[in-house]
Amino acid sequence: MLGTMLYGPHDIRFEDRPDPAIVKPTDAILRLSATCVCGSDLWPYRGIAEVAQPTPMGHEYCGIVEEVGKEVRNIKPGQFVVGSFAASDNICIVCHHGYQSSCIQREWMSTAQAPILRVPLAGGTLVPTRDLPPKELIPSLLTTSDVLGTGWFAADAANVKPGTTAVVVGDGAVGLLAVLSAKQMGAERIIAMSRHESRQKLAREFGATDVVSERGDEGVARVKELTNGLGADSVLECVGTQESMMQAIRSARPGGFVSYVGVPHRVELDGEQLFFSHVHLHGGPAPVRRYLPELIDLVLNETINPGKVFDLTLPLDEVAEGYRAMDERRAIKALLQP
Amino acid sequence: MLGTMLYGPHDIRFEDRPDPAIVKPTDAILRLSATCVCGSDLWPYRGIAEVAQPTPMGHEYCGIVEEVGKEVRNIKPGQFVVGSFAASDNICIVCHHGYQSSCIQREWMSTAQAPILRVPLAGGTLVPTRDLPPKELIPSLLTTSDVLGTGWFAADAANVKPGTTAVVVGDGAVGLLAVLSAKQMGAERIIAMSRHESRQKLAREFGATDVVSERGDEGVARVKELTNGLGADSVLECVGTQESMMQAIRSARPGGFVSYVGVPHRVELDGEQLFFSHVHLHGGPAPVRRYLPELIDLVLNETINPGKVFDLTLPLDEVAEGYRAMDERRAIKALLQP
Repeated sequence: MLGTMLYGPHDIRFEDRPDPAIVKPTDAILRLSATCVCGSDLWPYRGIAEVAQPTPMGHEYCGIVEEVGKEVRNIKPGQFVVGSFAASDNICIVCHHGYQSSCIQREWMSTAQAPILRVPLAGGTLVPTRDLPPKELIPSLLTTSDVLGTGWFAADAANVKPGTTAVVVGDGAVGLLAVLSAKQMGAERIIAMSRHESRQKLAREFGATDVVSERGDEGVARVKELTNGLGADSVLECVGTQESMMQAIRSARPGGFVSYVGVPHRVELDGEQLFFSHVHLHGGPAPVRRYLPELIDLVLNETINPGKVFDLTLPLDEVAEGYRAMDERRAIKALLQP
Repeated sequence: MLGTMLYGPHDIRFEDRPDPAIVKPTDAILRLSATCVCGSDLWPYRGIAEVAQPTPMGHEYCGIVEEVGKEVRNIKPGQFVVGSFAASDNICIVCHHGYQSSCIQREWMSTAQAPILRVPLAGGTLVPTRDLPPKELIPSLLTTSDVLGTGWFAADAANVKPGTTAVVVGDGAVGLLAVLSAKQMGAERIIAMSRHESRQKLAREFGATDVVSERGDEGVARVKELTNGLGADSVLECVGTQESMMQAIRSARPGGFVSYVGVPHRVELDGEQLFFSHVHLHGGPAPVRRYLPELIDLVLNETINPGKVFDLTLPLDEVAEGYRAMDERRAIKALLQP
């Protein structure tokens, strides 16, 4: 088959790859209905995270089961399934605690920008739908695999509850779906920090009540103005830079909750500043598997329409253009059709 | 009166000071029954925190009300009271959220190693007992003012619950009382990290089920051994150094809770390491006022005996010896009698 490889900064190639096959009895093979480019793919694409050797890309996926290993009992060929970007057994003590993305057997998915995908720990990782879903829901179902699940974790980890005030730092696809998630969890006021008109518009559509375009000190001051000088109950950090982390921490009220869901790049938190901020801090790779059943239901019953974050749809073989469009911020998120 | 001043590293003087008097109508004047030296007093004493000018010392106190300003309604002369090291109005929105030590009107107490003390925001800060307490309970009541309240916050912020496993990093007075607090909150297993025999003994008396004397990598490995390779549900960091913070974070299980209650000195947390640790992190100056009524009750009904952390009692005018004994680790904590 053909699959996506990153050779170095700005060098994406769609090229011959070995056909995926069952390697372990806990594997499954999927024929993907859709895959996409993640904001986190841009770090190595931009050369900010190092690429030591040609690397297969992609970790967001949904599709039809083609084959399962002989120890996979709860998933059957022909079913439509979604899985997390982190494969997990879903039975170890860490999974039991709800942190499947730190599962003792965890494997990071990394070959999903391709038509066929091998999923390890398939029984723990994949969640099937009862029926084959209608085509128009595929983009939204695809988001549950990572970008929505990550935004959802941002809201959950920041303790968003009915009636609270939430700030979302970052207007990428995760940030926008963090807005949607905060709305679903009942936040009364949702302040989206964004300086791009099209993203501001989508943020409002997803539930943002206020938009703040300032950043840094000015951004913090503006949030304080909107929260009686106090700071917000919940701040959802969806970028992963030093500036965005500090902006998030400083935008929370004393005793408030700050979540962070993108891998922090070159971020150092000053212990004393964190101490006197009095915030709760929680984050990490989103335990998407914990949320998948609920999120799939919300999509299937059309309570939410997270697929709107895809503002570019390309055939899979034009994957390189998907990266370019996102890198240049011409697109929020690119969906790829095998 | 005579009061305690720090002139520079290792230079404590007990010398003439102005008599405290009501300055604002929300003040109260107390005649102290007892005061003490705090672990945090040792940072400037050791020259690690800078002392720009001669500085009055002391922020732990309990005693008899002598006089109140005309806006103080809930406290009366003759009552025995305990207050937090952070004065707070207890009515602002931050106090309402339970973070009185970040109260909008907060004032840090800093003149309590003296016989007479002015307490600002007295109505919000001080908690009276119904009757004058028996003398033998004064040391334990004094601990509620800071050291016990801080250990209690460590356990609360680390989400200690019945049946959980807690690790306490640090065997100073706060760490020892964090052990007592975790025990009160129902932790099933309490691992105290300590390499000093007398402190290990007190830790066991307060409820520690295991003692780990190793530090750093070895300490983390030992905690993992004791927790099925996983790490603890709750880790209470009671030191405030880079080493102790990282030891705490690495000793928690994915999804576990790490609290930190001592001002971090030159601590930098690496964002990526924190991210993949998957822990919850919460701390700051303990909101002692939130806990005071409950802690005072636990002392008065003799459920707990936190006063045992005082292994040295001195007349107030020998305060300099109290600092020396704690600095040289000859004493866990020095009680001072005016």
